[in-house]
Amino acid sequence: MTSARFQQGMQKLQELTIASADSPTGHMEVGESFKDIAPDLTRLVVEFAFGDIYSRPGLDNKQKVLTTISALVAQGTPQIGMHVITGLNAGLTPDEIAGCIMHLIPYVGFPHALNALKVAQQVFAEQGVAISGT
Amino acid sequence: MTSARFQQGMQKLQELTIASADSPTGHMEVGESFKDIAPDLTRLVVEFAFGDIYSRPGLDNKQKVLTTISALVAQGTPQIGMHVITGLNAGLTPDEIAGCIMHLIPYVGFPHALNALKVAQQVFAEQGVAISGT
Amino acid sequence: MTSARFQQGMQKLQELTIASADSPTGHMEVGESFKDIAPDLTRLVVEFAFGDIYSRPGLDNKQKVLTTISALVAQGTPQIGMHVITGLNAGLTPDEIAGCIMHLIPYVGFPHALNALKVAQQVFAEQGVAISGT
Amino acid sequence: MTSARFQQGMQKLQELTIASADSPTGHMEVGESFKDIAPDLTRLVVEFAFGDIYSRPGLDNKQKVLTTISALVAQGTPQIGMHVITGLNAGLTPDEIAGCIMHLIPYVGFPHALNALKVAQQVFAEQGVAISGT
Amino acid sequence: MTSARFQQGMQKLQELTIASADSPTGHMEVGESFKDIAPDLTRLVVEFAFGDIYSRPGLDNKQKVLTTISALVAQGTPQIGMHVITGLNAGLTPDEIAGCIMHLIPYVGFPHALNALKVAQQVFAEQGVAISGT
Amino acid sequence: MTSARFQQGMQKLQELTIASADSPTGHMEVGESFKDIAPDLTRLVVEFAFGDIYSRPGLDNKQKVLTTISALVAQGTPQIGMHVITGLNAGLTPDEIAGCIMHLIPYVGFPHALNALKVAQQVFAEQGVAISGT
Repeated sequence: MTSARFQQGMQKLQELTIASADSPTGHMEVGESFKDIAPDLTRLVVEFAFGDIYSRPGLDNKQKVLTTISALVAQGTPQIGMHVITGLNAGLTPDEIAGCIMHLIPYVGFPHALNALKVAQQVFAEQGVAISGT
Repeated sequence: MTSARFQQGMQKLQELTIASADSPTGHMEVGESFKDIAPDLTRLVVEFAFGDIYSRPGLDNKQKVLTTISALVAQGTPQIGMHVITGLNAGLTPDEIAGCIMHLIPYVGFPHALNALKVAQQVFAEQGVAISGT
Repeated sequence: MTSARFQQGMQKLQELTIASADSPTGHMEVGESFKDIAPDLTRLVVEFAFGDIYSRPGLDNKQKVLTTISALVAQGTPQIGMHVITGLNAGLTPDEIAGCIMHLIPYVGFPHALNALKVAQQVFAEQGVAISGT
Repeated sequence: MTSARFQQGMQKLQELTIASADSPTGHMEVGESFKDIAPDLTRLVVEFAFGDIYSRPGLDNKQKVLTTISALVAQGTPQIGMHVITGLNAGLTPDEIAGCIMHLIPYVGFPHALNALKVAQQVFAEQGVAISGT
Repeated sequence: MTSARFQQGMQKLQELTIASADSPTGHMEVGESFKDIAPDLTRLVVEFAFGDIYSRPGLDNKQKVLTTISALVAQGTPQIGMHVITGLNAGLTPDEIAGCIMHLIPYVGFPHALNALKVAQQVFAEQGVAISGT
Repeated sequence: MTSARFQQGMQKLQELTIASADSPTGHMEVGESFKDIAPDLTRLVVEFAFGDIYSRPGLDNKQKVLTTISALVAQGTPQIGMHVITGLNAGLTPDEIAGCIMHLIPYVGFPHALNALKVAQQVFAEQGVAISGT
């Protein structure tokens, strides 16, 4: 019954990871890792977050990931690393991702921005990417 | 001594309001309204938020406002209305702004998204704009 | 394609409002009020929040609303009033709802608890209910 | 049994309001206003917040209120107004209170600081006080 | 002077741990671990959190822990693990605890729910319990 | 162009660390550690946080650090350790710092206070300081 939404979600997930088969975004893995206590989590993530929401019109993929990262910077949640990877896969440059975090300093304060920069720095190192001019 | 940064901030502010002289973004007005208890607030907003941060490279103006709005949705602060106006002036469409708020539902939850939608709806009505297809 | 989930969500919504036809929970109305800027919001609320999540096993309806109210107290979001009504409809007593808010003082602090008590107090007055012994 | 702590709390409350019999801090009134749904709230506020916590050694009264206001600025809760009054009564100057809010901009961001400034501005006007030099 | 409240708090703590002498809830241990910098912390936790608040009427123990866990999920604080243990001791099933966290996804977003699931998963493994059907 | 503010910021930073050359506050080090992805971060921290904000009149240094620590306790951000060191350097006693965190329990709840106490405890141990009477 829910397969159309699941397929739409899976298609969107593949679209977001197509740039780099070597750097999966981890969204599926997260759901699977909780299979023992939340067997429906993967389905909910794929169907709702990717099938319903990420598949909406209005914003392009790069804008959607930028929007997500910004909210997580404000929220201070550790999931930001996974979404930085998704952002790189979707075509955001390291300059855009670091620029987004730096841009938020006047709105969320230095502490939340520093925490996010630390995560982005680790992901950039792992992915072998850098901001321009460095 | 700080005039170069102040001028840079003012230039960025004008750039962000050029599309519509009739809909000032209100950022200056906010600073001025606290002149009695924080005489340096306008200077700090213009110099730091607009001269230092909004003038950084990395993101274009539309991305910068989208990033700001996303953080304020997550934060639940009422300033979001002022930044929705700034976003319209910077060229974001109502579809992009509403799309940004709707996109954040899986990350910040319905309550914060509903609060932000209410503010955006009021600003759209006041500015006489609408999402496409309505 | 999504009608099964929508029907499941609508059924859960009716189940949560059956006790009192005179005090609708307002969840549908919220979605409808944003029809102009988020035409799919009602569908997402009914399908996801009520069809997917509220229809999960594990907790009974009273526990689900108590859980929701507790999170909103911690979050400080104004939607708490709508969920207090849902709680009364689902069978939570005013003692349980006020008791939940008071119980959270050591965990979220007095300010968030006081804000929530104010909203609950207004809903109790509007619904003509009171805690036992008053 | 609890009267010693209640008396200690009441004594601390009186100490915090002694400077100005005309501007009660409102802490008792808040508790009383919820007598119908939380009959023990006044007792808990007086005994715990004032009898246990405000009566601890380590900080003087001015530091204690400054600390409280700072946390509420970060939290974004509306109770800040009541604590600004308490601060004035405890001997904090308008410069110290406004200075505290302005000092927090780099840590909590402009939005939370602006919300707090607005509340402080209203309290200062109601109390007929102003920062020095204005 | 405070011994009645301390005794009431200790009694409530014992009541919450009676199901399993082998899995202490850790609430006392937390207080003791800060004896060097906050010698009164244990007393405040036992007297206020357990003697005053946990001993209030209105909710049963299972509801009280469920309420606590829900607030901590929304808050994103690491103490949630200690309260998951308390919940198991108070009689909440793993299905109720995992169900509570999953139920909060639409209200607090996936990131906070995923962080809480991870902690619950670890506690369930340590305690040798599982949701039904697994 | 910005050198006057940078110098003012550096002077304030030195003032805050003068008491103890052996325990640098780490504010510069943080900025430097992100040189690869945010080359302007050190400048922004020194110029804005220390040159603009920490150099404002209204509060003395001890009050400024107390204010900062209080906001970080409410926020739950890990930077609190660095500011506890700054506080000790600025002349705050361990009693004042621990007293500040304990004072916030009624406003931010036990979980945020416990997280902050843990960080303060570690810093006190590393710095070889203790509250009076221990």
